[in-house]
Amino acid sequence: MSILVVGSVAFDSITTPFGHVDEVLGGSACYFSTSASFFTDVNLVAVVGEDFPQRHIDFLDSRGIGLEGLMRGAGRTFRWAGQYEYDLNEAHTLDTQLNVFEDFKPDLPKGYRDAEYVFLANIDPELQLDVLSQVRNPRLVACDTMNFWISGKRDALLKTLARVDTLVINEAEVRQLAEEPNLVKAAAIVRGFGPQTLVVKRGEYGVLMFGEHSIFSAPAYPLEEVFDPTGAGDTFAGGFVGYLAATRNLNENNLRKAIVFGSVMASFTVEKFSLDRLRDLQYGEIEDRFHKMKLLTDFGLLDDLQ
Amino acid sequence: MSILVVGSVAFDSITTPFGHVDEVLGGSACYFSTSASFFTDVNLVAVVGEDFPQRHIDFLDSRGIGLEGLMRGAGRTFRWAGQYEYDLNEAHTLDTQLNVFEDFKPDLPKGYRDAEYVFLANIDPELQLDVLSQVRNPRLVACDTMNFWISGKRDALLKTLARVDTLVINEAEVRQLAEEPNLVKAAAIVRGFGPQTLVVKRGEYGVLMFGEHSIFSAPAYPLEEVFDPTGAGDTFAGGFVGYLAATRNLNENNLRKAIVFGSVMASFTVEKFSLDRLRDLQYGEIEDRFHKMKLLTDFGLLDDLQ
Repeated sequence: MSILVVGSVAFDSITTPFGHVDEVLGGSACYFSTSASFFTDVNLVAVVGEDFPQRHIDFLDSRGIGLEGLMRGAGRTFRWAGQYEYDLNEAHTLDTQLNVFEDFKPDLPKGYRDAEYVFLANIDPELQLDVLSQVRNPRLVACDTMNFWISGKRDALLKTLARVDTLVINEAEVRQLAEEPNLVKAAAIVRGFGPQTLVVKRGEYGVLMFGEHSIFSAPAYPLEEVFDPTGAGDTFAGGFVGYLAATRNLNENNLRKAIVFGSVMASFTVEKFSLDRLRDLQYGEIEDRFHKMKLLTDFGLLDDLQ
Repeated sequence: MSILVVGSVAFDSITTPFGHVDEVLGGSACYFSTSASFFTDVNLVAVVGEDFPQRHIDFLDSRGIGLEGLMRGAGRTFRWAGQYEYDLNEAHTLDTQLNVFEDFKPDLPKGYRDAEYVFLANIDPELQLDVLSQVRNPRLVACDTMNFWISGKRDALLKTLARVDTLVINEAEVRQLAEEPNLVKAAAIVRGFGPQTLVVKRGEYGVLMFGEHSIFSAPAYPLEEVFDPTGAGDTFAGGFVGYLAATRNLNENNLRKAIVFGSVMASFTVEKFSLDRLRDLQYGEIEDRFHKMKLLTDFGLLDDLQ
């Protein structure tokens, strides 16, 4: 079943200890939709400027991503510049130019209003609410947010969270949102705001998922070369929601598998700049790494084999 | 089969956001041996001062810990004072008084020289080497170390590592020892120094074990109340080596189970100050939490149940 994602399409300029790139394809909706496209159909709603080249549209189109909702505004595309030190868990923003994104007001194409799976990427929570008011009867609404909205638009964010099934955010943001340093307690508080499921992203330390009756822990896939972590979180979310939508199953075990598929997708994205690793990724590689995640975490199943 | 541990017995004074204690029982050998004693017999080699009270000796004795190698020196017992902020992953040392520990020169009782399982806690690598020269033919030698020895006695440490099967150290120390920021690469470098197995402790993010052909990831057990992390690493090591010695099996799967038992033991220790939580711990609680670690990490086995 198809997914609707609303978020950003951007030009990223990135410096890591391993290299530098200027104005490469990025943005939450790009990473999410490209990742989800390995599992199911996905429709993207975002805005780009007059300077957005056809070759990027061709790439998204080649992934089968629905682009009817990709608006073109008068002006320049959203730009972000960031830097990472050897601690690749933390991005240092050097520059943000909202450009056409400043006036972004998502207006869903008619055919998108019946979306069953919705991902609200990290945008103004008022826009997130506005999108939800346009969607009729989704099976699953997941969203992301960030420290900027938690401190600056807390009331609007809480209204959004009351209508969201799954919140996918960073560990520090869970603590900030709950105003509680202990993660287990903070998760309970945040789940009290609305989301039945809380997915906590911990960078190279993996993911914790908090549900009503259980906690699930998945490690990040250990890599010898982490080249650029930009987009890892949205790629994760794309794999997570993509797998859920493809399998149409929201039970606990399938949610866990979706977390692992999301982690696998993120592990590919960080191997190269921009979306470059996803451009040549084959589904067999995804399945192979999913299997390796089992070998990485199992401490009981092997009993049966020995 | 019995274990030999050589390390420190100390009085700890600890401040956390949740409370303060003065001169409570601590030290690497205490935490290790108490934890290991839930699985098998363990003999402790350490030194205490004239001020070390009988009630602590009675406690260790009540755990069945062999105390023939607990020497009493002229002077005061080793003292450590430390503080934790809300980030409980990092201890800030306020004061260290080596006292009798300064002249500690381990001399193994005759009956200990045939030890099959040896844990060299975090002491001067020259002493670690000296202990190894007194042990005849161990099946498994594991050791710990710290940044102080990595920078200050690197040559001696490398000599020790060449004779060690399993190194158990913190994540930052792996990077420091290998002089390599990427953990996967750093692990390969450190394994090249000698240890066939490298166990990387990551605090609240769990443990990674690097072997010849595989990596194993275990999360920390998520707790609502982390009260005092002091001794978590040595308690982990005690459960890890304790389970291996009890089961007499060093294959991959058993190493993985041992990692999880070690993590379970550490999760109890941090619930109270000093060794207090281990004083009233029952083996059934350990088994119960081991089972919960399976539920925490599994994303495939549940298939069979649904």
